[in-house]
Amino acid sequence: MILCDVGNTSVDLFYVGKRTKLSAEDFDPATVQDSVYYVSVNASFNERIQNYTNWYDLRQLIDWEKYYPTMGIDRIMVCEAVEEGVIVDAGSAITVDVMRGDVYQGGFISLGLRSAQSAYANLSGALDVSFNFEVDLAKMAKNTPDALTVGFLAPLIEKIQSLGKPLYLTGGDAVLLSCFLPEATVDEELIFKGMKKLIEKGVKC
Amino acid sequence: MILCDVGNTSVDLFYVGKRTKLSAEDFDPATVQDSVYYVSVNASFNERIQNYTNWYDLRQLIDWEKYYPTMGIDRIMVCEAVEEGVIVDAGSAITVDVMRGDVYQGGFISLGLRSAQSAYANLSGALDVSFNFEVDLAKMAKNTPDALTVGFLAPLIEKIQSLGKPLYLTGGDAVLLSCFLPEATVDEELIFKGMKKLIEKGVKC
Repeated sequence: MILCDVGNTSVDLFYVGKRTKLSAEDFDPATVQDSVYYVSVNASFNERIQNYTNWYDLRQLIDWEKYYPTMGIDRIMVCEAVEEGVIVDAGSAITVDVMRGDVYQGGFISLGLRSAQSAYANLSGALDVSFNFEVDLAKMAKNTPDALTVGFLAPLIEKIQSLGKPLYLTGGDAVLLSCFLPEATVDEELIFKGMKKLIEKGVKC
Repeated sequence: MILCDVGNTSVDLFYVGKRTKLSAEDFDPATVQDSVYYVSVNASFNERIQNYTNWYDLRQLIDWEKYYPTMGIDRIMVCEAVEEGVIVDAGSAITVDVMRGDVYQGGFISLGLRSAQSAYANLSGALDVSFNFEVDLAKMAKNTPDALTVGFLAPLIEKIQSLGKPLYLTGGDAVLLSCFLPEATVDEELIFKGMKKLIEKGVKC
């Protein structure tokens, strides 16, 4: 059994504990003979696999009443992995979701680190600077890089910390954010854990 | 005496309590005979007025040791207006600064409402939605517009509230933000009050 997370540009495969990331455009589904359980946000990829009977869309197994109709499939998967806690998925966007007693409590979406920095740069050449990840978020800033880093990260980190524990961090910027959230568990395979749990449940709850 | 705030696209004039906003490109400095005290972020406008002896750049009166060298002139002016409190200037960026006993404590810069919404829209078509300004920021969201609004505004508003009082709101989105900060004083002329106080001091502190 292969687990597969299909993004707009990449295909992330998980097989016997090993992870392989490939280009979505170049990937040929015919090369895979095993059963593949997948989630996808890539419409053109979905078309390419629709005639492969060994590809199973996990969307069908989701209990949609637990979440909301426009909620991203990746967010639902990381929530499925966690019965109790706060889940931060730091990718192109930073999604923050709360699960209590296996019940979805809601969440919110912040910009990702890269998109926030681009948005600052678009405002003014003076704000086209890199974040300073060594800044003390508890202090008010007195230079431009710190003012942007504190402006973007301090409110977000404090809000996340106010939501309670345990705290899970996943996604491409998980390690970077963990500098400011030392109490968090970094788990880069959370999405696959959620997919596996959903398959094990097998039917709608 | 005329006070003038020159932005990249507009010239904001303040004269005997009346405010007039004009296009920076079309504005002809020769039409003004009175003394003009100005702050400007517009390099080409600065060139156009350099030979007018009735135009005085307030940059010269600033005690730069009180602030920091790359700090925006507009931010410094709103800080000059306030001896004690938190100043939120909600424009294309949202700047937040703290003054205590007329001493600058530092601050931070968040994205403005429009730039944040554009940045979300750039991430994904699914996130190209308007903020919901009637949302309850204390609750986790269960739909996309609320998830973005809570994601952008809840951390920021809570951070601002944690900085103490009194709280002043200025800039184009001041009224909009005041829905979430009912304890704040909205003062759309704060920049001109700062300019006036600086002129009254007349010399570097």
